[in-house]
Amino acid sequence: MTERLVVIGGDAGGMAAASVVRRLRPDVEIVVLERGARTSYAMCGIPYLVGGEVDDLEDLVARSPEEFRAMQIDVRLHTEAVAIDLAARTVQARDTLTGATEPVGFDQLMIGTGSRPIVPGWAAVELANVSVVHTLADAARLERLAEGCEGLEAVIVGGGYIGVEMAEAFLARGARVSIVQRGPHLLGNLDPEMGDRLGDAARAAGIELHLDASAEEVRPSSVVTSTGAELPAGIVVLALGVVPNSGLAADAGLATGVRGAVVVDDRQRTSAEGVYAAGDCCESFHRVSGRPTWLALGTVANKASRVAGVNLAGGDATFGGVLGTAITRLVGTEVARTGLSCAEAVDAGFDPVATTVEASTRARYYPGSQPMAVRLVHDGASGLLLGGQIVGGAGSAKRIDTVATALWARLTIDELVDLDLAYAPPFSSVWDPVNIAARQAVR
Amino acid sequence: MTERLVVIGGDAGGMAAASVVRRLRPDVEIVVLERGARTSYAMCGIPYLVGGEVDDLEDLVARSPEEFRAMQIDVRLHTEAVAIDLAARTVQARDTLTGATEPVGFDQLMIGTGSRPIVPGWAAVELANVSVVHTLADAARLERLAEGCEGLEAVIVGGGYIGVEMAEAFLARGARVSIVQRGPHLLGNLDPEMGDRLGDAARAAGIELHLDASAEEVRPSSVVTSTGAELPAGIVVLALGVVPNSGLAADAGLATGVRGAVVVDDRQRTSAEGVYAAGDCCESFHRVSGRPTWLALGTVANKASRVAGVNLAGGDATFGGVLGTAITRLVGTEVARTGLSCAEAVDAGFDPVATTVEASTRARYYPGSQPMAVRLVHDGASGLLLGGQIVGGAGSAKRIDTVATALWARLTIDELVDLDLAYAPPFSSVWDPVNIAARQAVR
Repeated sequence: MTERLVVIGGDAGGMAAASVVRRLRPDVEIVVLERGARTSYAMCGIPYLVGGEVDDLEDLVARSPEEFRAMQIDVRLHTEAVAIDLAARTVQARDTLTGATEPVGFDQLMIGTGSRPIVPGWAAVELANVSVVHTLADAARLERLAEGCEGLEAVIVGGGYIGVEMAEAFLARGARVSIVQRGPHLLGNLDPEMGDRLGDAARAAGIELHLDASAEEVRPSSVVTSTGAELPAGIVVLALGVVPNSGLAADAGLATGVRGAVVVDDRQRTSAEGVYAAGDCCESFHRVSGRPTWLALGTVANKASRVAGVNLAGGDATFGGVLGTAITRLVGTEVARTGLSCAEAVDAGFDPVATTVEASTRARYYPGSQPMAVRLVHDGASGLLLGGQIVGGAGSAKRIDTVATALWARLTIDELVDLDLAYAPPFSSVWDPVNIAARQAVR
Repeated sequence: MTERLVVIGGDAGGMAAASVVRRLRPDVEIVVLERGARTSYAMCGIPYLVGGEVDDLEDLVARSPEEFRAMQIDVRLHTEAVAIDLAARTVQARDTLTGATEPVGFDQLMIGTGSRPIVPGWAAVELANVSVVHTLADAARLERLAEGCEGLEAVIVGGGYIGVEMAEAFLARGARVSIVQRGPHLLGNLDPEMGDRLGDAARAAGIELHLDASAEEVRPSSVVTSTGAELPAGIVVLALGVVPNSGLAADAGLATGVRGAVVVDDRQRTSAEGVYAAGDCCESFHRVSGRPTWLALGTVANKASRVAGVNLAGGDATFGGVLGTAITRLVGTEVARTGLSCAEAVDAGFDPVATTVEASTRARYYPGSQPMAVRLVHDGASGLLLGGQIVGGAGSAKRIDTVATALWARLTIDELVDLDLAYAPPFSSVWDPVNIAARQAVR
């Protein structure tokens, strides 16, 4: 009898594994149960569709069901996995159009159920001008709202990455934009000093910030905040973050951990024999804190899922873990982070020392050179690099990769002083900003 | 009696050290002997002045003699060191305006004599339309030539970094540009496959390439090549590379090594007690080959000189060495390299395996995404990463820093597969091109 792999969830967490298994094991039967009408799409691309930079929603689809089927992967759309029976080795699959259920047997199981947006009770309203940012259906709705938003007030509830990107998108479409953010600055996983820089950029771009405030009620044409303000709102975007979609796995008896995410080892194995997981539904290992963490990032989902795929195919791969590297942009200001913020470093038992320098993206005399602030965090006792943050002009933020690679390799702060980084006047100052920050930190 | 440091050469190799000593040791007398009329200038910025992107030659001066004097550094311009007497602890200093010489005593000596352009006999012509690219006087001459070059033929002799940058500069000013390059491709320290990509970009930009050809004669309005061609030349730029300016040190009995450069240890100490050197005049330690090398790069000069300065001031610093990281641009194509090319890897005793992938600078669906080829070289036996090269569109080349940092940390190729690099659609594909290349190499 042919061996069968069942994959639950048709997005990156599951499908990267499915693709690897197909490449390495042409003989294995692969069945994918996807509750929606789509497979692998770039959720991260939604803000750029809404903002009008990407024209066609179909561009966000990395690989269609037809493409997977051409690879001999049996993609079953509108098919929701409603229960896993580990003893019987079956998944109960429900046809979401007819309601009919049937058991699908598996030899091995890959769980890639992803995450779902947080929608508190007060936000669970059925209004055409209110949307979360998660699926391609959300994307289509938000794109329609954006096309008609000129002169309207768009209130973005939540100032994390998606919130910031949606603010930019609606601003580009001509809306008057405000962000309601619970914490004292945008992007809660930055240190306050760097978050404040982004806040300054947001205000300079014309975005109204309501910090240290939470939304408490969504009305048909306004949002009421905890500070008592009633913000006029022609459009409301709910960007309050996501939680792991791990209920199915937990109900089946799989171990769960941080934020309820499925526990996996470095081979992406869950607590049950022959059952793997990857992506937003499960934990990752943080290389700097040395602890399990939970990060809903497309990069992590793809990489962890590749590892699961190699192992499902009988190979031997381990996932190197995560640093929490992230990047975004708000109008002309770029921002990126990696590793631990000061607060996270304290929490992980380190003694963080932070150093921030003001540098420039290019030689200062070269046209288009822009300010670029680099912050490095290291452990005072050991000198170990713990994290980095960048806020600056065009060409600044992707340089966080230098810091990420140094973190990955567990370098100490003094090892970054002489780091031989690329220099020519259109690309950098002769001392790269990362060198400058390290030199300052060591001094 | 006050301790006296004498610095020979007023550019980066010497002056970074002088600045550090001044900061750490306010009591030390510092005398700088500079043969020209300038201090610390950005030689690397000359092509952008010539091309018209940088308006003012003074912008290329990082720190003027007056600024150094304000730091209590006794900068003596038009003063050439003509001999070092190690026994007497003196430098013979000649006033280049009057010809008078006098001995200048030192307790410690810092040699930062830099490099000088290679000018073979056939090129040593006194013609107003022929220039090397080295000093600010050259820069001023080249800028005047460029301003009047529209419709003229500019022949660039030498297809290294400076040659490529000068080609771009004259092209931007409206000249018809050709490059005569001795080797089979531009930028000899790239692997041929990557050099050829740059060659394609040069031709597409309208630059005429004469590869595997050397210039043999410069006539008043033409250049004759080894292949028998006589190229019309209204302007001739000699970009044949540089050699270490180490004669003074060698004559004094200091040990010299690769290409005649001054031998230094990892504290920038020469073979003589109390005598240090940094910059283009001396060797560096190559972290990948494990051997001394010679690189004339502003980044290296500044970093090594800082180390010398700390040690001259009584501190304890070691220089981490070099990777040979370099970056440039030719019209719309960016190019960068770090570590060892395949040929260099063989020469260093490795068994290089090279992997080249075609990726994109941004998510493929995001506007402005451009092709980006990444080549990684690793050792077949150990998996150790040996080098990397990038050729691609805007935003591609500075990403070599990821590879440089990985090399610096001595990572193996498989450690790059999961490397947690920054992703958002305007900045990268979800698998960063460096991840993709590593994944392909491991596969």
